[in-house]
Amino acid sequence: MPQANEYFPTVKKIEYEGPDSDNPLAFTHYDESRTVAGKTMKEHFRFAVAYWHSFCNENSDPFGAGTRSFPWVKSSDPMANATYRLEAAFEFFTKLGVPYYCFHDRDLAPEGQTTGESEKNLVELVELAKKYQNETGVNLLWGTANLFTHPRYMNGAATNPDFNVVCHAAAQVKAALDATVELGGENYVFWGGREGYMTLLNTDMKRELDHLGAFLRSARDYGRSIGFKGNFLIEPKPMEPTKHQYDFDAATVIGFLREQDLLDDFKLNIEANHATLAKHTFAHDVMLAAQYGLLGSIDANRGDNQNGWDTDYFPTNLYDAVHVMMILLEHGGIAPGGLNFDAKIRRNSTDPEDLFYAHIGGMDTFARALLIADDILQNSEYKSLRNGRYRSFDSGEGKEFASGNLSLEELRALAIENGEPEMISGKQEYLENLVNRYI
Amino acid sequence: MPQANEYFPTVKKIEYEGPDSDNPLAFTHYDESRTVAGKTMKEHFRFAVAYWHSFCNENSDPFGAGTRSFPWVKSSDPMANATYRLEAAFEFFTKLGVPYYCFHDRDLAPEGQTTGESEKNLVELVELAKKYQNETGVNLLWGTANLFTHPRYMNGAATNPDFNVVCHAAAQVKAALDATVELGGENYVFWGGREGYMTLLNTDMKRELDHLGAFLRSARDYGRSIGFKGNFLIEPKPMEPTKHQYDFDAATVIGFLREQDLLDDFKLNIEANHATLAKHTFAHDVMLAAQYGLLGSIDANRGDNQNGWDTDYFPTNLYDAVHVMMILLEHGGIAPGGLNFDAKIRRNSTDPEDLFYAHIGGMDTFARALLIADDILQNSEYKSLRNGRYRSFDSGEGKEFASGNLSLEELRALAIENGEPEMISGKQEYLENLVNRYI
Amino acid sequence: MPQANEYFPTVKKIEYEGPDSDNPLAFTHYDESRTVAGKTMKEHFRFAVAYWHSFCNENSDPFGAGTRSFPWVKSSDPMANATYRLEAAFEFFTKLGVPYYCFHDRDLAPEGQTTGESEKNLVELVELAKKYQNETGVNLLWGTANLFTHPRYMNGAATNPDFNVVCHAAAQVKAALDATVELGGENYVFWGGREGYMTLLNTDMKRELDHLGAFLRSARDYGRSIGFKGNFLIEPKPMEPTKHQYDFDAATVIGFLREQDLLDDFKLNIEANHATLAKHTFAHDVMLAAQYGLLGSIDANRGDNQNGWDTDYFPTNLYDAVHVMMILLEHGGIAPGGLNFDAKIRRNSTDPEDLFYAHIGGMDTFARALLIADDILQNSEYKSLRNGRYRSFDSGEGKEFASGNLSLEELRALAIENGEPEMISGKQEYLENLVNRYI
Amino acid sequence: MPQANEYFPTVKKIEYEGPDSDNPLAFTHYDESRTVAGKTMKEHFRFAVAYWHSFCNENSDPFGAGTRSFPWVKSSDPMANATYRLEAAFEFFTKLGVPYYCFHDRDLAPEGQTTGESEKNLVELVELAKKYQNETGVNLLWGTANLFTHPRYMNGAATNPDFNVVCHAAAQVKAALDATVELGGENYVFWGGREGYMTLLNTDMKRELDHLGAFLRSARDYGRSIGFKGNFLIEPKPMEPTKHQYDFDAATVIGFLREQDLLDDFKLNIEANHATLAKHTFAHDVMLAAQYGLLGSIDANRGDNQNGWDTDYFPTNLYDAVHVMMILLEHGGIAPGGLNFDAKIRRNSTDPEDLFYAHIGGMDTFARALLIADDILQNSEYKSLRNGRYRSFDSGEGKEFASGNLSLEELRALAIENGEPEMISGKQEYLENLVNRYI
Repeated sequence: MPQANEYFPTVKKIEYEGPDSDNPLAFTHYDESRTVAGKTMKEHFRFAVAYWHSFCNENSDPFGAGTRSFPWVKSSDPMANATYRLEAAFEFFTKLGVPYYCFHDRDLAPEGQTTGESEKNLVELVELAKKYQNETGVNLLWGTANLFTHPRYMNGAATNPDFNVVCHAAAQVKAALDATVELGGENYVFWGGREGYMTLLNTDMKRELDHLGAFLRSARDYGRSIGFKGNFLIEPKPMEPTKHQYDFDAATVIGFLREQDLLDDFKLNIEANHATLAKHTFAHDVMLAAQYGLLGSIDANRGDNQNGWDTDYFPTNLYDAVHVMMILLEHGGIAPGGLNFDAKIRRNSTDPEDLFYAHIGGMDTFARALLIADDILQNSEYKSLRNGRYRSFDSGEGKEFASGNLSLEELRALAIENGEPEMISGKQEYLENLVNRYI
Repeated sequence: MPQANEYFPTVKKIEYEGPDSDNPLAFTHYDESRTVAGKTMKEHFRFAVAYWHSFCNENSDPFGAGTRSFPWVKSSDPMANATYRLEAAFEFFTKLGVPYYCFHDRDLAPEGQTTGESEKNLVELVELAKKYQNETGVNLLWGTANLFTHPRYMNGAATNPDFNVVCHAAAQVKAALDATVELGGENYVFWGGREGYMTLLNTDMKRELDHLGAFLRSARDYGRSIGFKGNFLIEPKPMEPTKHQYDFDAATVIGFLREQDLLDDFKLNIEANHATLAKHTFAHDVMLAAQYGLLGSIDANRGDNQNGWDTDYFPTNLYDAVHVMMILLEHGGIAPGGLNFDAKIRRNSTDPEDLFYAHIGGMDTFARALLIADDILQNSEYKSLRNGRYRSFDSGEGKEFASGNLSLEELRALAIENGEPEMISGKQEYLENLVNRYI
Repeated sequence: MPQANEYFPTVKKIEYEGPDSDNPLAFTHYDESRTVAGKTMKEHFRFAVAYWHSFCNENSDPFGAGTRSFPWVKSSDPMANATYRLEAAFEFFTKLGVPYYCFHDRDLAPEGQTTGESEKNLVELVELAKKYQNETGVNLLWGTANLFTHPRYMNGAATNPDFNVVCHAAAQVKAALDATVELGGENYVFWGGREGYMTLLNTDMKRELDHLGAFLRSARDYGRSIGFKGNFLIEPKPMEPTKHQYDFDAATVIGFLREQDLLDDFKLNIEANHATLAKHTFAHDVMLAAQYGLLGSIDANRGDNQNGWDTDYFPTNLYDAVHVMMILLEHGGIAPGGLNFDAKIRRNSTDPEDLFYAHIGGMDTFARALLIADDILQNSEYKSLRNGRYRSFDSGEGKEFASGNLSLEELRALAIENGEPEMISGKQEYLENLVNRYI
Repeated sequence: MPQANEYFPTVKKIEYEGPDSDNPLAFTHYDESRTVAGKTMKEHFRFAVAYWHSFCNENSDPFGAGTRSFPWVKSSDPMANATYRLEAAFEFFTKLGVPYYCFHDRDLAPEGQTTGESEKNLVELVELAKKYQNETGVNLLWGTANLFTHPRYMNGAATNPDFNVVCHAAAQVKAALDATVELGGENYVFWGGREGYMTLLNTDMKRELDHLGAFLRSARDYGRSIGFKGNFLIEPKPMEPTKHQYDFDAATVIGFLREQDLLDDFKLNIEANHATLAKHTFAHDVMLAAQYGLLGSIDANRGDNQNGWDTDYFPTNLYDAVHVMMILLEHGGIAPGGLNFDAKIRRNSTDPEDLFYAHIGGMDTFARALLIADDILQNSEYKSLRNGRYRSFDSGEGKEFASGNLSLEELRALAIENGEPEMISGKQEYLENLVNRYI
């Protein structure tokens, strides 16, 4: 029974105790049933736990072996361990009180000796996961296929120059789609970890991009054929593990989806740390996706401003969270996506409680950010200030211009007529103070 | 007479003297009439001098006043100085032996008190420039409007939240297009220095992007109406002067042009230093544009790998130049664009000869790179190695996949049939050695 | 009279109104007479306004002309304008209620045609400043000489390869020291903007560093000879305007001071944005200086995590401020240094109020951070957790080791005796949550 | 017998064939017995192979499993495999023709269950390595202890807050010193991979730095006591695996060594990729160490200008290599250090030949760079140009200043006497062209 107390015996169900609590194993702000802006916190965030970081990743790094102890690794049989891991995961989900989780195929079930054996392993674990989902009410936010760990993908998966590797990637995606549908997954994600290049010297970039398009269309068609109704999501990242990834950032992916005619079925899964590695803020990539109606889901984590790799820290920065919650509130929320903690505890966080602290910190940060963001939007002049800057386009000639109805000559004539424009302050310091007042 | 010897009296016409010359005021590799791969060097490169850096920029920086002495600033009348500057520029162009130059409207002629006066100033200088072009055979590679220096553009030009500023930007672009057409300019460039934001807190990104689209369509329509047959070019840059520019990189701009339906008239002007600020190699952005048929022109310069701002060094790195020349040779060359030295000498390079050294270094670097690139493409196994990697897609099921004719199930069946793929080395070290052998 | 209402007529004296105030021209947290941890807020921070950014910098950038209107520039005579500027500055200081300001020689008085004239100009303005100081009670936190703006310093000042430039730098420092002493300045700062190189190819680094040492010793000796009792401060910065600055970061400067035997007289002025450009956190460089007894003063500003140049934003980030205030509280505070706002408003912040908003935001951020930091140190387990980690060195063999009394063989014997160490969590997520609870 | 042909059967001994050879398994420039500037190439470079990357690293990365096949892993007994690995390594060393190798204790011999067992394992392998060294003439450039891979070091080794971990680190260093001396190793290296912090919140930086000093003194004393005559070397790196490492860069380490009074026994091992991660050029850190007489050895590799982590590419960039060889030629060479290829082939370089290509590329790049550097120093005006810049300090008052004999007042008097300095160009473009002419 996953609800049992076997794997995290020192931790009880995490409860909301309010901002004054000094219990580190309680929520100070996340109160799942509290209603803000017409929805409960649970509905706003749709928090998910990342199966890989929390249950598969022993926290090795390029210079060190794993440090975590995994009480669910009890056997020499990988399939047996996979079932223990699943038990542990559901014990964690329910103690934490998150409504969702996310997985890669290989997180759930070990790779077999053959495609057939891998598929069989996955089917078996999916059956068990389904049972636990039913028992606990925890659901699958999204599934995906791991097309980057196995050595066969060292030159790419869908963009591999060897067609046989593409076939293997397809086999994995098919099985992962089957699993996602079976478990009622609400989205399906593609993160192209190896879809890129190590050197342009040996690469035909356009050919590889066209292969990626063909691959995604096949996956989309298959998914729809088996009844998948959710969004397909692309998760941008600029680099790492490849020197350069094709899905560099939100703008690049949107352009690719448009060129490949995939906009009807695909949206974006924006990860904070990936946005910052591409020299954007987290808010930038979320805003871009949201404004184009393409925000599918969010991987809530955090990079390190001094380190140039994917640190996947848990999100604890209120500034980032407030800005993103303001965007979500103004753009209709994140559903059917959610906030997935694609985040790992530090390699030296080796106490069992540390995994709870990390998730509690992330959830409380976003819960508090929601309250602040709602306050700013409801009670401050933030919206009117921002929107008021564009009022010259709300009517008259400005509106005509925006509608494409003014020629360059007409615009020039207006310039002469109007004379030198007024200097209008952007009020950035004012706005930054405003945000600080609401924090 | 611009061919006179007034402004650079210590320097004679730069001649080709061959690789063994130790005359620092001679070319060692750039021999304009030498034929390589069916074209002369002159035709391959179509080198251009950037009017702004070489004749307007006194080399101030954020912490220091300008250091250069400008012998062409002789008067208290800006229009008189503008004519002297033009003389000096053409003396330089002809001594250097470049076929092209590029300018912003405000480089050529000073801003007036009103739009009308600014236009009049520009027309006057254009007339003189036309005369000098005719006398010297030096032509205009591209023109552009400076929509970032004047304080009125502090919140953007085409994307300014104040419609009146948009009108002023349009007036400038109209006049700059008139000037470009009058001077036979082969391209027209947009670099959106202030088209971006200082903070997302006060910005409606999508609204601004749509305004940019409307603006560019108006400019395109006007240009075509006055007989401009060349390419309109967008020059990507990720940031600086704004915190974030909309034309972030090649992929972002291509996506924008596609969304705004501007692909028939617009191509890209790729700048090396801008690509690297966006975390791409110079070759990456050139390759992306070239493979999508959108490479319009190149701003040949170089960033600093340790400094995070636009250094605009002159290009002297053979590795970068060789890779870019390989791409140009494989994709039909750069015409009707060219290689514009959007580069500045260091602030402490204060001898008149330094401007020559800098351009000579850039031209020789690319000339030598052309010879090396041609050698690699003609005589090494580089092309067959790269293309051979994709042979599994040249026929059979791989080709069917690439044509979109295989379903996910069919691909899976092939995976099972084929079994585990072979491990195929990417041969990166081999290829890097190969390039070094040809340098 | 500087207290008059001429230059900022729309703004009255800024008062403390408490956290619930929604008056953007009031303090929400900075209450200068409030006592925290035994000192008033005024004593804790010793806030200073940077004369250059606030009164001399028109907010040009490398791509644009200045945007600010300077009501104190009323005349064609630079010396007259300098006196108006001083009036405006003291009006601002007193309205804002800061106890200190900082200046470069050339901020206060314009460069003359000769060294003598420059000195005379400075003396004249110093006299007026002294009068205003006496009238207002605003004092000089530190003075410095601008050894980077004038073209003569393009190859460095104290490290210039031309001895004559070194002499001119010395003349400026002498006059700036005279001015600082005359005005009762509590510190004297060296920021070596051009003390570094543009290329190693033309540079003898060690020779230049030894010249820097000789220069600083001469300056120190002169300062002491005229009665200067304060600290000399070096302000580290890694780059910009040079490609590479010698005073790269706190560790580099400490090493240099030790090698040059300057530790008795010199301390560090740590700037947030400089620390982050050198890939440290602000807290890191403050901590390093503080732990070695070398923290002299702080330039409180903020960089941009996506932009690679010195943005000098006003500090508004609570996380950075809290961490730094924790360090100051634990290390005896910042006096006789202070927190100088070496920060500039954005180029598009053109309303007169913007300069007030910016400073208010910075002061409130630090005031709030002080309250939070004190709360953490007094009421949380933060200190005991951190110190407890080292308890094995507080006594016994660990203490012996730390005292240098154990040999490698003895340590090895202990390893064998003790057996495999316990895995002890670093509790990073716990600590990050703890900080968030107190914010 | 290590000279046998078992592990790399498809590759014969690599020979010098000259620049025109198109045999990718031959040297084009490295001719070990060729004399340049009075020494053979072998003596100049003292090339070493890094045991870890070439024989222990399966090329996993944070997102993927290892891809290399290790024919020397033939057994389920780690000690047996360690002997096969050693055979393979010496086969490789001799086929490549390098005079040196480098190792960590755990590369050579597996960690045992106890300190005693680990020591015994190492002694056993050292005995075998000694035999192979004698048979082949390949020697040990340096040894080191791996104090970062084992989970026990997750919070640091010498700087761990738990004294027992410090003891274990000491035990490893003792054994590694024993091994180094036994094998005639010419240097002993400390790379403090985990000597730093993950967060300042839980760290007492100064206490940890003092522990590091105590640890290094104990190691030094032990090394000297067993007859080690070589240099102890510290290898700077700014970050990764920790968020921040104490040995950040060359300047930081030199400062630390001076403070801890370790300059008599310790020098620096400069790694190219570590210097660039710290925002220096490779040449900068080499120059700094060389000019202070502290250049001990070099880890010759290369970072990626677009990726922010330690890529450890093999060095193939002529510009970097030429600059470093110029420094070595001017500062008396690298002995008793050498050039160690702390570099790994790409994860998708899976052919056995790839390891040879990579090393050949590195060796040829440096060999060619030596020839170019010598040519520049002997035949160009490079040295006279650089040194001539400082001629005003070679005699007279400039010399007096440099000797510390001029007061600030005297310098000021000279400024007035001399008048405004001349503007002297730094000639950077000229020098960059000069280097290109010699390449």
